[in-house]
Amino acid sequence: MIEYNRDAHDIYRQSFAIIRAETRLDHLPADLEAVAVRIVHSCGMPDIVEDLLFSPDAGAAGREALTAGALLLCDSQMVAQGITRARMPANNPILCTLNEPTVPELAKQLGNTRTAAALELWRPHLAGAIVVIGNAPTALFRLLEMLDAGAAKPALILGFPVGFVGAAESKAALAADSRGVPFITVRGRRGGSAMAVAAVNAFGREHS
Amino acid sequence: MIEYNRDAHDIYRQSFAIIRAETRLDHLPADLEAVAVRIVHSCGMPDIVEDLLFSPDAGAAGREALTAGALLLCDSQMVAQGITRARMPANNPILCTLNEPTVPELAKQLGNTRTAAALELWRPHLAGAIVVIGNAPTALFRLLEMLDAGAAKPALILGFPVGFVGAAESKAALAADSRGVPFITVRGRRGGSAMAVAAVNAFGREHS
Repeated sequence: MIEYNRDAHDIYRQSFAIIRAETRLDHLPADLEAVAVRIVHSCGMPDIVEDLLFSPDAGAAGREALTAGALLLCDSQMVAQGITRARMPANNPILCTLNEPTVPELAKQLGNTRTAAALELWRPHLAGAIVVIGNAPTALFRLLEMLDAGAAKPALILGFPVGFVGAAESKAALAADSRGVPFITVRGRRGGSAMAVAAVNAFGREHS
Repeated sequence: MIEYNRDAHDIYRQSFAIIRAETRLDHLPADLEAVAVRIVHSCGMPDIVEDLLFSPDAGAAGREALTAGALLLCDSQMVAQGITRARMPANNPILCTLNEPTVPELAKQLGNTRTAAALELWRPHLAGAIVVIGNAPTALFRLLEMLDAGAAKPALILGFPVGFVGAAESKAALAADSRGVPFITVRGRRGGSAMAVAAVNAFGREHS
């Protein structure tokens, strides 16, 4: 037998204690602390908190929307899969349109990626939804374009695209002007589905 | 309209060019370069390559097993969801047993986490499979225990648990003694489902 902690509850407790000991949280609004802690937990990097950017109303907006039953619009199947259903306070529906059969043709028409084109199918659902982007910079850029063109406003944008082409730029564009929508994002290249999911799950119920 | 790259093929091409320009790859076996590049792509951090640990036979083992139709055994639904089916060369089956109804009871009997207990249902499938761990340290520890107790050997272990309690330790245990099984892992707290998925997808076909 190898010596290791086998108690899920105790592993969580210890993890969050280590994170709180190693992470500077005092610059965050109190209602975003849990989001920050869970994002650190998802990636193993306490310094990620220094790169978090957010609007001051993001915590309240997220909690209210989720409690009111907001739909979760996800850019990738990994994000949709990662959200812990049991933590969602209102049995919140989760939608990822990336694999819808019309998306490849929409992408050709729009001259954009499939991930960006998939947002066309979000239009009837955008008002009051929580948008969760954990993969594609083009999805975040496209969302900002749609808002500029008058699309209905979501309740919150969780913008965590990752990578080397457009990720930092799309998140900087969101942080510079979120088109009046509350948001949480992370500066730079880091991001990804696990961080995006962690942010959603942090707004949910404590025990699943 | 916002100015950004909307061409998925060109985004990939540019991303991989930036990664290759910024990442030290010359210490890696040639057949693990693509794995390293895709792992960097998944997390936005070129320096992650400095923490990669692997057995010299891991590249060949992964490619051969996948081509031969190896089953992919995943510790989480996010990992199972993230694997690009179209890249898999032999329509490889993907199995995650975490949500099987017997797992909570197994976890109680074993005195271990549900993620670790879910590995009991891997036993008939372990021989020649590719194990993909992107979340739970206890899954990796438990796998090593099962191998010590005589469980059938998989073809390759991709060990990428993330976090603050047991992640670094379980990956160090794998790297110190992989029980004769080819492996790829990453030193320290960093890891996660996106990196684990990137490693699998790197072994797949170039065009999906």
